[in-house]
Amino acid sequence: MSLVVQKYGGSSLADAESIKRVAHRIVETKKAGNDVCVVVSAMGDTTDELLDLAEQVSPVPPPREMDMLLTAGERMSMALVAMAIADLGHSVRSFTGSQAGVITDAAHGKAKIIDVTPGRITSALGDRHIVIVAGFQGVSQGTKEITTLGRGGSDTTAVALAAALEADVCEIYTDVDGIFTADPRVVPSARKISSISHDEMLEMAASGAKILHLRCVEYARRFNMPIHVRSSFSSKEGTWVVTADPEGTQDMEEPIIAGVAHDRSEAKITVVGVPDEPGRAGQIFTTVAKAQVNIDMIVQNVSEADTGRTDISFTLPMSDGQRAVEALMGTKDEVGFASIQYDDQIGKLSLVGAGMRTNPGVSATFFSALAGAGINIEMISTSEIRISVVTRIDQLDEALRAVHTAFDLDTEGEAVVYGGTGR
Amino acid sequence: MSLVVQKYGGSSLADAESIKRVAHRIVETKKAGNDVCVVVSAMGDTTDELLDLAEQVSPVPPPREMDMLLTAGERMSMALVAMAIADLGHSVRSFTGSQAGVITDAAHGKAKIIDVTPGRITSALGDRHIVIVAGFQGVSQGTKEITTLGRGGSDTTAVALAAALEADVCEIYTDVDGIFTADPRVVPSARKISSISHDEMLEMAASGAKILHLRCVEYARRFNMPIHVRSSFSSKEGTWVVTADPEGTQDMEEPIIAGVAHDRSEAKITVVGVPDEPGRAGQIFTTVAKAQVNIDMIVQNVSEADTGRTDISFTLPMSDGQRAVEALMGTKDEVGFASIQYDDQIGKLSLVGAGMRTNPGVSATFFSALAGAGINIEMISTSEIRISVVTRIDQLDEALRAVHTAFDLDTEGEAVVYGGTGR
Repeated sequence: MSLVVQKYGGSSLADAESIKRVAHRIVETKKAGNDVCVVVSAMGDTTDELLDLAEQVSPVPPPREMDMLLTAGERMSMALVAMAIADLGHSVRSFTGSQAGVITDAAHGKAKIIDVTPGRITSALGDRHIVIVAGFQGVSQGTKEITTLGRGGSDTTAVALAAALEADVCEIYTDVDGIFTADPRVVPSARKISSISHDEMLEMAASGAKILHLRCVEYARRFNMPIHVRSSFSSKEGTWVVTADPEGTQDMEEPIIAGVAHDRSEAKITVVGVPDEPGRAGQIFTTVAKAQVNIDMIVQNVSEADTGRTDISFTLPMSDGQRAVEALMGTKDEVGFASIQYDDQIGKLSLVGAGMRTNPGVSATFFSALAGAGINIEMISTSEIRISVVTRIDQLDEALRAVHTAFDLDTEGEAVVYGGTGR
Repeated sequence: MSLVVQKYGGSSLADAESIKRVAHRIVETKKAGNDVCVVVSAMGDTTDELLDLAEQVSPVPPPREMDMLLTAGERMSMALVAMAIADLGHSVRSFTGSQAGVITDAAHGKAKIIDVTPGRITSALGDRHIVIVAGFQGVSQGTKEITTLGRGGSDTTAVALAAALEADVCEIYTDVDGIFTADPRVVPSARKISSISHDEMLEMAASGAKILHLRCVEYARRFNMPIHVRSSFSSKEGTWVVTADPEGTQDMEEPIIAGVAHDRSEAKITVVGVPDEPGRAGQIFTTVAKAQVNIDMIVQNVSEADTGRTDISFTLPMSDGQRAVEALMGTKDEVGFASIQYDDQIGKLSLVGAGMRTNPGVSATFFSALAGAGINIEMISTSEIRISVVTRIDQLDEALRAVHTAFDLDTEGEAVVYGGTGR
C-alpha cells in the first residue's frame, strides 16, 4: 500500500465538469490500491474575483482580512471535490489548512510553513477515507490566525504534507505534460524531461522556469520527496523530480544538461561613477537590502584608472525597480556616485545541468552558441550546475533556441498546452 | 460604555456598495461610544450560487462537505466587511464561527448551539477592535467539525453571542422597519410594533411571522436578551423585543393584542374512519413522529355512534406531506382506518397578545370578526396568549384583514420595503 499525495491547480478545477474529472482521477488512484491525500487550489478565477471584490471595498485591505477572504477559495474547491468523490461512492473528508495541521509563521500573505502536524489527516487515511486538503493556507503558531502562503503556496502545501505523511510520491497536476528542456512557447522543439534532480530543478525554478515554484522544490529537496509533475488532462508519465544519484557519479545515459530556463521579469540598475574606495559597494547593497529588494546578479566594472571611479550593475525583480531606484537616490550624496541608470529591457537565460560539474566543455559550447547567433552578453553568473547570462530582451528568444540546439536538446515538436499553473 | 451586538443579513450585504454602507453604520455605532460585535450572513446570492455549484457536482452531497462549502459564504462577507471598516480608519478583526467559540452539536446542516466560549471576541473587544463574526456556523463539540445552524442561523448566532458577551442589546438589521401587526403585503394598514414581549414574539414566529426565526427568539427569551429589529436602510427605531413586565400586570397603555400572523406553508392530513378504540390515535402519531414529521394542530372529531369510527385531522409542514402520507399508508391495516385525505389548500391565522390572558372578550371579538367576513373555520387551537384557526387558503387574506380591523390594529399605511431576510 502506497501513500500518494496529489495536488491539483486552479486550471484543473475550472468548473463543475473539471471537478468531476479530477474526482475520477483521484478515485482511480485510490482503486489502484493507494491511500490518497489531495491538495487543491481555488477554482479557476475564484482568487481573481475575490481580489476584485476586496479592491472594490478597500484599496489597501488589512493582510489578515485578505487571508480570511482568499482562504474561502480553497474551502469551496475542496468541498466540491469531496462532494464529487462521494458521488462516485467513495468515502472522503476535506480539511482546511488549519485542520490539516499546516502551521506557519504569522506573515499574512506570504507565510512560511514551520511545522506540519497532520494528526487528523493520518486518522482519516487510517479510516480508509480519501482526504482533500485546502492548499495555500495554514494557521499561525501560537496566535492561531489564518494565513496564506503566497505564490506557489499550494504546491508547497502538497510537498510539505507529503513529507510529513512520509508519502511515496507527491504528484503535482498541472495543464502541461511535465517539465520541458525549455519553454515550448519559445522553443517549439523543446522536449519533456523524464527525470531531473532536485538540485537542477531548483536552479531551473530560480532561473525563471514556472511550472514548479522555488519554495516547493526547496521543500522537496530538503525532505528528499520525489515529485511527479504531470498533466491532469492525460495519463502520460510526466517529469520526475528526484534526489540526485547519491554516489555523485555520472550515469552514462544521464544527460549533461537538464534544460534552458529564461526570465523576462528582471531589470538592471547601473550605479554610474561610484568612487573606487573600500565600502562604497557595501553602502549601495545595504541601501538596496533595507528597501527589501532581492538582488540577483552583480557586475562591478574594472575601475577607470584616470578617474578613480567605477560602475556597479545589478539585476533585480522589475516589480522592485522603483523602490530600489528611490532608495539609492536618497544616498546619492553620501555614496558620491554620479547617476543611476534603470534598464528593464533585459532578459536572462540560464543553462542548468548537474553534468556540467564534470564536463569542462560546457562553457565553451554555451558561449560559442551565443556568439554564433550574434547575441551580445551583458552579464554572466555561474553556479556549480548553472550558467546564466543577461542579454537584450529582444535577443532572448533567439539565444534560447541557439543554446537549446547546441546542447542537442531538440526533439520532434510535440503538442503541449501551456498556461498558468494557478497558485 | 455599552456593548452592542449587531446582525446584518444577506440583503444588507448584496454588493461592495452595500458592504461599505453597513461598514459606515457599524463605525457610527462605535463612534457613539459603544463596543461593537457584528454578526454577518453571506452576501446576497452567494449561498444560492454555492448550492447551485454543489448540485452540479453531486445530487446528494455529504452534509459535512455541504457545511464546509456553505461556510465559505460568511467567511467572504466577514472579511469584506472588516476591510471596509479598516478603510474607514478603525481597527477591526473578523472571526469564523469556530474562532468565535460557537460550539454546536454535530448535526450538519441544522446544528444546535450548545455553548458559546467567546474568549477571542472578548479579548479583541478589550483591545478596542470592532469585531466581525461569521453567522450561521459553528464547530462541533469534541469532533471539531465545521457545522451550520440551518434556517435563521445568523440571527441565532447574534443572540447567542450577545447573551454570552452579556451585551446590552442585540440589533437585528433587515430590509424592513421592524415587526408589523400583520404582513403589510397582505394587510396594507398594518403598523409597526414599537415593543413586543419575547413570549408574544415567540408565538408570532411560531405562527408564521418571518422577520425573526423561532430559534433566535427562543434563545433571546431564555437569556433575557433584548432584540432591536430594525432596517439597515434607515435610522428609524424598529421593534424592541423585550422581557415582559415581570409583575405580570397589564400596563394601561399596553395593547391587548400584539399582532396577527399567518402561515401558508402547512397542509392538513385527515385520517378517515379510525376505529374509536384506545390506542389508535397513539399509533397514528407515533408513526408520524418516527417519520420525523412535526405536527402542529390536531382535531379529533366526535365519534359516530352508529359506526364506532372517527376522523382525526392534523396539520404539518407541507414539505413533510409526502413522507407523512407514505408512513401512514404503511400502517393502514394495522390501525384499521379507511383512508387518508391530504389537503394543501389551507391557511393558518394566529392572533397573538399577552393581554388576552386577562381580557375574556378577545375570543368573542375574534370569532365575530371571522363570522362577519364569512370565513369558514376548519380547526382551532389556542395557547394562553394565542388563538389560531385554519381556513381555506383563498379566504386567508380576507380573514387577516377582518381580524386586524376588529382589534383596532389598523393605521395609516406607511411605506415599507418587504423582502427576504437572508439566513
